[in-house]
Amino acid sequence: MEKKQLDPTQEELIQTQPAEEASAGEEKVFPEDMEPQNRMENGAESNEDEDIEKPNYEEEIASIIRGNISPKVMEERIMDYHSSDIADSLDVMNETERKRLYRILDIEDLSDIFEYVDEDRAAKYLMEMDIRKQISMISNMDTDKAVDLLRLLSQERREILVGLMDKDLRREMAMVASFSEEQIGSRMTTNFIEIKRNLDVRGAMKSLIEQAAENDNISTIYVVDENEVFYGAINLKDLIIARQTDRLEDLIITSYPYVYAKESIDNCIEWIKDYSEDSIPALDEENRVLGVITSQDLVKVIDEELGEDYAKLAGLTAEEDLSETVPTSIKKRMPWLIILLFLGLFVSTVVGMFEKVVAEVTVAMLFQSLILDMAGNVGTQSLAVTIRVLMDENLTLGQKMRLIWKEFRVGSGNGILLASFSIPAIGLYLHFAKAEPWLYAFAISGCVGAALLIAMAISSLVGTIIPIVFKKAHIDPAAASGPLITTVNDLVAVVTYYSLAWIFLIQMLHY
Amino acid sequence: MEKKQLDPTQEELIQTQPAEEASAGEEKVFPEDMEPQNRMENGAESNEDEDIEKPNYEEEIASIIRGNISPKVMEERIMDYHSSDIADSLDVMNETERKRLYRILDIEDLSDIFEYVDEDRAAKYLMEMDIRKQISMISNMDTDKAVDLLRLLSQERREILVGLMDKDLRREMAMVASFSEEQIGSRMTTNFIEIKRNLDVRGAMKSLIEQAAENDNISTIYVVDENEVFYGAINLKDLIIARQTDRLEDLIITSYPYVYAKESIDNCIEWIKDYSEDSIPALDEENRVLGVITSQDLVKVIDEELGEDYAKLAGLTAEEDLSETVPTSIKKRMPWLIILLFLGLFVSTVVGMFEKVVAEVTVAMLFQSLILDMAGNVGTQSLAVTIRVLMDENLTLGQKMRLIWKEFRVGSGNGILLASFSIPAIGLYLHFAKAEPWLYAFAISGCVGAALLIAMAISSLVGTIIPIVFKKAHIDPAAASGPLITTVNDLVAVVTYYSLAWIFLIQMLHY
Repeated sequence: MEKKQLDPTQEELIQTQPAEEASAGEEKVFPEDMEPQNRMENGAESNEDEDIEKPNYEEEIASIIRGNISPKVMEERIMDYHSSDIADSLDVMNETERKRLYRILDIEDLSDIFEYVDEDRAAKYLMEMDIRKQISMISNMDTDKAVDLLRLLSQERREILVGLMDKDLRREMAMVASFSEEQIGSRMTTNFIEIKRNLDVRGAMKSLIEQAAENDNISTIYVVDENEVFYGAINLKDLIIARQTDRLEDLIITSYPYVYAKESIDNCIEWIKDYSEDSIPALDEENRVLGVITSQDLVKVIDEELGEDYAKLAGLTAEEDLSETVPTSIKKRMPWLIILLFLGLFVSTVVGMFEKVVAEVTVAMLFQSLILDMAGNVGTQSLAVTIRVLMDENLTLGQKMRLIWKEFRVGSGNGILLASFSIPAIGLYLHFAKAEPWLYAFAISGCVGAALLIAMAISSLVGTIIPIVFKKAHIDPAAASGPLITTVNDLVAVVTYYSLAWIFLIQMLHY
Repeated sequence: MEKKQLDPTQEELIQTQPAEEASAGEEKVFPEDMEPQNRMENGAESNEDEDIEKPNYEEEIASIIRGNISPKVMEERIMDYHSSDIADSLDVMNETERKRLYRILDIEDLSDIFEYVDEDRAAKYLMEMDIRKQISMISNMDTDKAVDLLRLLSQERREILVGLMDKDLRREMAMVASFSEEQIGSRMTTNFIEIKRNLDVRGAMKSLIEQAAENDNISTIYVVDENEVFYGAINLKDLIIARQTDRLEDLIITSYPYVYAKESIDNCIEWIKDYSEDSIPALDEENRVLGVITSQDLVKVIDEELGEDYAKLAGLTAEEDLSETVPTSIKKRMPWLIILLFLGLFVSTVVGMFEKVVAEVTVAMLFQSLILDMAGNVGTQSLAVTIRVLMDENLTLGQKMRLIWKEFRVGSGNGILLASFSIPAIGLYLHFAKAEPWLYAFAISGCVGAALLIAMAISSLVGTIIPIVFKKAHIDPAAASGPLITTVNDLVAVVTYYSLAWIFLIQMLHY
């Protein structure tokens, strides 16, 4: 059906598609199956990422509010825009204009819009409404969103609002609010469809239509037994195409995935992702459905999780954005820098212990930064790989051992390659550029090479073991930032390099 | 309705919920509104992230296949599991067992399962089927998934299969395949519901039910005009609760967001995310709906995008996983290491230019690593912030300038703090630990402090400007990895430090 409909579209479209040009000729469907030159063209064609300009909806909406048409017409005009765009438009309006908007739109629309308002402005905007509107709007929002919004308010304000809400809702919010930020329960919405197992297809459809009035996430319907215990799920699609005579039991997917609301997000997020379902139910200890995690929630969670890890890898304590003030940013970045300063000072004192070596073979100094950097880089690479692996799966001890052993070999492998390149390079440089005698030049480059190899091997071990240990100690492995690993590996590198220089150059060759 | 149903659940649940204990007493709904000690308890309570063990479905499924029950029963038993788990179970089966599975399950189920099979095994497993099954199974998959799968095959094999598929399907695949990996079109599925604008509610429902038979993504229905041009979308929810007498026009959301299939993923991904819809249509140049991006696709894309950036920040060319062999990993990590080795050698030659300074004030050497590290760290922090900001929004020149200016102030701010701490610290260390005279000790610590401040200020500029320049030059800003910035900033730091030491210590104080 839908294919039929789409056909004409494609007929014409295909003409304009390079792939088809080709496939017309030699039945090539895949660009990569074409002769190079065609592929080139195609590559060129399809890589011109056309940067389509998004119209400025915010201003359009604001100008509607500023105009003087009747409230009814104004409402219709505004509701022609997506709630997300209306939410953004609040930022370009002044307080009076916003208040006008609140008066014009009805509660349902307002609560949709407020689910999109940016955290650091939501409280301000909410306070611009009268308290009745505040209460009925929050009551109308998804429970998790409502809880998030309430969290932004001052405690007394929050208590006033919550106090004035109806009992059931307060219960639901208490339930969602009782989960910590780290638990998946804090991300669930109680806005889903639940039907009893003993219904027939007609009854299920009826119950669905009743609940659909006040619930959005209808594409999956959750089935519970007489004790409210989660039994399975039905794809709305299957229910819609089912015949009245079909048995509901046959539509129920009893293998539908679920999580427990108390599980920590880190533990189940990857697992939820793998099933790529519209929504996944979150159960309590008695296996009753408390709420669902929608894939839109999932998008947000994953975005946050990875964003945090990303920031941490760079030695930031948390993510930052444009709007942030300089002092806040300084505060966020200070902690690591201070720790690193101390580590750095410690490294310096260690270098200090080798002052004799330094004084006697000054030229060796030139390559300190090289060795320290390479060790740091290799360590950071191993770190990043390990953190991602730890995030993706819960490893057995055996797998951890294999990972460590693998990283060690990768580190040494790279070490050998780089050493075998830098020994001649540095030797020649010292002989010709610095006019050092051949033996001395290569004695030093030998030290550098050996130090590179050893330091890189050890560094990759450090970069792998530290996050694993952190995880074991229930510290977020992502807390082991690149800068930390780098500085720790500085120690390794400094000690290796100067010990080698001391033994090799001073003790053995008596320079 | 649903609230009613859930109530008993919550009644009991709440008893077990710390938040409720509190709110029972002092009407506290939010844990954070409780007295410290309660909050402690609650915190403790809710933070015990219970690590629920997931049952080993793979083995269960494999054992069913190994058993000798009738095919029909076996099929029923297996289809009690989620396609994703069945896909995983293929890995624990041997070829004979897999072939048995292929024979037992029907095409629809097999194509569902294959949408979950891991990329690096999918081709192998596919080849274990006879060609008829291969063709009908691939024809049954979502177009984008089918294309991905075919991409894994050898060219001739691919051509054989594609050649044997029906013309319409080949067209659709040619269309999806014609988009490059970087374009959003490569991620869309042609599996969606599309209805004509001129239908009434009854007609729309009828058309939906017809299409639902072969299309999964039904929660949003796309509306097109007589020329197939995208007109708007209808939430299935609204259609379901609509009365026969309602006008379809009133259900259509004309403000529904859309993208063009040719847009690059980086350009529209953040934008799509903001709308948090179930699916977003991808249009061709003539504004006809080619396919949709579902939020499950979105989860995958965001996961990949951020994963790549994460890897790049750590100086990896691409993400890695456990199963990867040592040589592949070495290959992936080599490129950066080689670039960095050359940069490192260059830094060394620059240090070489200051050999005199080094020789005369050896003790200055001790703090080289400290200054280089701090500069590198600050640079990496600015880099990470800038990359994330660039990813989130398309900045105006003015905003970019503000960002650079902000980063500069943050860098200098941190520099001042760290310098003001390290000057006395190093001075005292040199005087007491290294028995240097007061003036000399503080002359050096002064140099270190000044160098720290200057290097950190410049480094944060470098870390901000480089990714911005990269983006302008249409290079992925994430390509500016932490290690790169670190090494570039080594140069800055080395030059600053030794020039200062030379001017200050040698020229002015004549040490």
